[in-house]
Amino acid sequence: MDELLERLIESNRHYTTAGKLANYIPELAKANQNELGIYVVSSDGRTSFAGDCQKNFTIQSIIKPILLLLALMDNGEEMVRSHVGVEATGKPFDAINYTDQTLLSEHLNPMVNMGAILLCTLIKGQSYSEKFERLLELTRTLAGNPDITVNEAVYQSEKRTGSRNRALAFLLKSQGLLSDDVEEVLDCYFRGCSIQVNCKDLANIGFTFANRGRRPVSEERVFSARFAHYVNAVLMTCGMYDGAGDFAVRVGLPAKSGVGGGIMAISPTRMGIGIYSPGLDQKGNSLAGIHVLEDLSHTLYLSVF
Amino acid sequence: MDELLERLIESNRHYTTAGKLANYIPELAKANQNELGIYVVSSDGRTSFAGDCQKNFTIQSIIKPILLLLALMDNGEEMVRSHVGVEATGKPFDAINYTDQTLLSEHLNPMVNMGAILLCTLIKGQSYSEKFERLLELTRTLAGNPDITVNEAVYQSEKRTGSRNRALAFLLKSQGLLSDDVEEVLDCYFRGCSIQVNCKDLANIGFTFANRGRRPVSEERVFSARFAHYVNAVLMTCGMYDGAGDFAVRVGLPAKSGVGGGIMAISPTRMGIGIYSPGLDQKGNSLAGIHVLEDLSHTLYLSVF
Amino acid sequence: MDELLERLIESNRHYTTAGKLANYIPELAKANQNELGIYVVSSDGRTSFAGDCQKNFTIQSIIKPILLLLALMDNGEEMVRSHVGVEATGKPFDAINYTDQTLLSEHLNPMVNMGAILLCTLIKGQSYSEKFERLLELTRTLAGNPDITVNEAVYQSEKRTGSRNRALAFLLKSQGLLSDDVEEVLDCYFRGCSIQVNCKDLANIGFTFANRGRRPVSEERVFSARFAHYVNAVLMTCGMYDGAGDFAVRVGLPAKSGVGGGIMAISPTRMGIGIYSPGLDQKGNSLAGIHVLEDLSHTLYLSVF
Amino acid sequence: MDELLERLIESNRHYTTAGKLANYIPELAKANQNELGIYVVSSDGRTSFAGDCQKNFTIQSIIKPILLLLALMDNGEEMVRSHVGVEATGKPFDAINYTDQTLLSEHLNPMVNMGAILLCTLIKGQSYSEKFERLLELTRTLAGNPDITVNEAVYQSEKRTGSRNRALAFLLKSQGLLSDDVEEVLDCYFRGCSIQVNCKDLANIGFTFANRGRRPVSEERVFSARFAHYVNAVLMTCGMYDGAGDFAVRVGLPAKSGVGGGIMAISPTRMGIGIYSPGLDQKGNSLAGIHVLEDLSHTLYLSVF
Repeated sequence: MDELLERLIESNRHYTTAGKLANYIPELAKANQNELGIYVVSSDGRTSFAGDCQKNFTIQSIIKPILLLLALMDNGEEMVRSHVGVEATGKPFDAINYTDQTLLSEHLNPMVNMGAILLCTLIKGQSYSEKFERLLELTRTLAGNPDITVNEAVYQSEKRTGSRNRALAFLLKSQGLLSDDVEEVLDCYFRGCSIQVNCKDLANIGFTFANRGRRPVSEERVFSARFAHYVNAVLMTCGMYDGAGDFAVRVGLPAKSGVGGGIMAISPTRMGIGIYSPGLDQKGNSLAGIHVLEDLSHTLYLSVF
Repeated sequence: MDELLERLIESNRHYTTAGKLANYIPELAKANQNELGIYVVSSDGRTSFAGDCQKNFTIQSIIKPILLLLALMDNGEEMVRSHVGVEATGKPFDAINYTDQTLLSEHLNPMVNMGAILLCTLIKGQSYSEKFERLLELTRTLAGNPDITVNEAVYQSEKRTGSRNRALAFLLKSQGLLSDDVEEVLDCYFRGCSIQVNCKDLANIGFTFANRGRRPVSEERVFSARFAHYVNAVLMTCGMYDGAGDFAVRVGLPAKSGVGGGIMAISPTRMGIGIYSPGLDQKGNSLAGIHVLEDLSHTLYLSVF
Repeated sequence: MDELLERLIESNRHYTTAGKLANYIPELAKANQNELGIYVVSSDGRTSFAGDCQKNFTIQSIIKPILLLLALMDNGEEMVRSHVGVEATGKPFDAINYTDQTLLSEHLNPMVNMGAILLCTLIKGQSYSEKFERLLELTRTLAGNPDITVNEAVYQSEKRTGSRNRALAFLLKSQGLLSDDVEEVLDCYFRGCSIQVNCKDLANIGFTFANRGRRPVSEERVFSARFAHYVNAVLMTCGMYDGAGDFAVRVGLPAKSGVGGGIMAISPTRMGIGIYSPGLDQKGNSLAGIHVLEDLSHTLYLSVF
Repeated sequence: MDELLERLIESNRHYTTAGKLANYIPELAKANQNELGIYVVSSDGRTSFAGDCQKNFTIQSIIKPILLLLALMDNGEEMVRSHVGVEATGKPFDAINYTDQTLLSEHLNPMVNMGAILLCTLIKGQSYSEKFERLLELTRTLAGNPDITVNEAVYQSEKRTGSRNRALAFLLKSQGLLSDDVEEVLDCYFRGCSIQVNCKDLANIGFTFANRGRRPVSEERVFSARFAHYVNAVLMTCGMYDGAGDFAVRVGLPAKSGVGGGIMAISPTRMGIGIYSPGLDQKGNSLAGIHVLEDLSHTLYLSVF
């Protein structure tokens, strides 16, 4: 297996330079575009890896499935659904005029920013710093890595430049969907996106979703199987931005990407996979990473379809 | 298994009256709303059924995965992808003005009407009646039922009232995506939607997709496994109209519904499922049918997630 | 005045080559792009002209205000308003999905194709050829030119290539807004767009709107002043496609352009103006024509603002 | 004339209860819905009035034409146009996804909030409080009323509840169209909307636009005629929210409404008109106010068309 991963990394490394680094915050633009790494945790307890799999990077949007999970654990399925919908084709808000269409909960999705920001408000905690601590703690538990922490430079950078997310949060507020202080909510969200992980962490987190809520090896249950079904289903239809349909056809696994260059992929009952390569395609997904996953899926018949 | 199906039919039959019959063509509004039936073909060769599973109804949108399959068999994956995209969030065309945005192939999806109409042009054949004959023949082969035929009354009704589909076809033509005669293309499409099937037919067709291209029992290969992955992936992200996300969370299987009241669901490697109940929910899917599938999926752990 | 027009034509002639000929039908692409002409009919009975003002061209979208006028004359203001709205910002129809927003009368505008096509159905007449004859007759009366006729080559070309208009008409039909035969309605519309005029004709028609319904010199009333207010108001807000706001700021007159290169401008109580130059700007308006009008408006203080 | 106004007020007073008070901020909901007043300043120096014309109310969106004027006076036409467009049909921003369409200056309009907020940044001044002081000073000068001041309660209320405007400002910022501090810019905008005026003030301001930049009686020039043309043209196409087309047909004058219940209408070369009645129609315009203006326009042949 290590050999297979080695081969896939090498045969796809030329894609690393075809992508583009995220540049909306200066910190992300500093990444080394040539890096490509993979880590796999399998249901029989074995782990395999290849390439730059110890590299740290920020989790970015891959925090969204963890946010969704925590919201589900804290509130149950029904209440989360009543606040944030699950359709890819949630109608857009499009009005600049006085009389415009209303933004409804069912137009939101946990995997797009507006929905994820709203999920922060559903996490239990006395304050937003307590909410964030609980999110960080869950991330550490899922990854089995107590050393996971926030990249302060990225966090400060996100906080300084997050105008678009502020716009989305104020839209939620103006529609009566969010009542807390916008800056506090966003602070939790920005910190979440700035959590620093590596391929092994993503593989472990992904495995717990693949294993329907039980951790690798110990088989300790962290969350109910039902929530794994929920998160995995949402990842399949919306985890890869506007490239979700393409990814379903080519790879056939629930997965989430982040503009930091990470992809967490889930092979239900079989594997958790963590990938890193910071060059992004036009839809914001790791370009080389998707190619590696496509080859891996074909080689091991991983597609759920 | 028959007993389980029997129980699911009875416990969900009260949902049949909660839905609404499709009324855009008079023929569909004549259906008996109380009917509910299911047929299951399993990988071990067994078949099970319950309720009104011998009832005939028109296939409607469930012809779309078969159209997609035939287009793939005739042209290969790459060429089909270059004509009809796979994203749920294909940007809408919205312009009534002189200067407006262009409609591109990547905005189309095989499971929405515009994409399905365009797929008709990709089927091999000297004429549109030959193209349609090949589509009908493939449907019969997949279902293992040489008696499948077109419901003439529904076909005439569709043809007479199909203004919206004509609008979509002319939009394709005005954008240079379709060059053939619109009425000929639509005739093929309307005939396809008017093919009459029952639950058993849908279960057999679904099983062939579940079995990655091989028919039940005989294991005869009708199409390559790769095309089954393709069709199943598209069904998962877009098979249930605007309810695809909800269906993925609740049921977790690739499936396609039609406004005739049918649902074809696919449990990869395990089962093909055909359901019929003509009362539709607000998104146009069989309301009682989805409830039966939800219960069946939970009982047998069918979700791919 | 002739001298002034002469000067404006010469100083703006260099703009003729900056525009682009309409090419969606072959006939229009055959125009001579260097041509630029103007004809002015004033309230004191004088006429002035310069440049290529005897050139014939097809009226295209400038038929829309005449269509609107005839619909008003045949049905009155209230009934026309109930079928075709007057807002520029009528919400777009944007759905490719099963469940989509409804297209309402108030989303239509007489100056965009969908609204103009619907206006054809409001013209009185036993048949669509009678309706068209009445439209042609009104055009001749307004222009004071009984020789005005249809350019058959353009008409045939429009009819052959009008997929977009067919799409719009079928959308109207699918929404229940249009019940007549689509091809008959469009035939009337295509013929209307293919009526051949020159600058003098447009100036005379425009003058009748400027003179609130009374013809030049004879002061014979063709229609009520109220209808002139209605048409002129609609032209001000929507007569120049997506360039209406720009034209209001730069020229300040109600006007209508056509992709044939014509512009009809209306200086209420003072003048009717006809302009021709077939090179179009990005919004589909005669590029040199707008420049001539801008200079004329500034020189003679024509802006209504 | 006073008699005519008296009659129009009485015959339309029953419309006051058909509208609805703006309720997005508590202060506005406190208005007395039965009030209806009008004030007219004519080119011959006479003034006329009727009804509740001394009532104070906040200017709200009627500050927009003054903002536009000040931006024009400070920067000239070309520069203002390069930052804020003039089309009613500026395409909407509609994306919730990672890859979305860009918001361009030409999509903005001075009469919708996003454009008006951006205009604040174009006002000259060392600080935003200086910018606001200059806006207030210009308002006083145009109205000839040095006592005009801000309604502090409304201002505080706007500031507290302005989530939608914050969302719009952050969208501008995220698109690189606005670089200043959002709260400072909005503070200027909220103060501007909270300026308190009465019908006489609006009539005087409107008259200055009607008189192409010269004040009533003294004929002192405050701004160039060109800027009056610009502002009046923008008001005609976009001054009445989504009801601009309807207002052009029914009244035929440039005008601006505010959710405080005011309307400022401009009869070029002839009159400035100020109206107040706080009951709003569905588009956010004073319902009784539009009826009074419609009657006045018909009686005195005020329509520019």
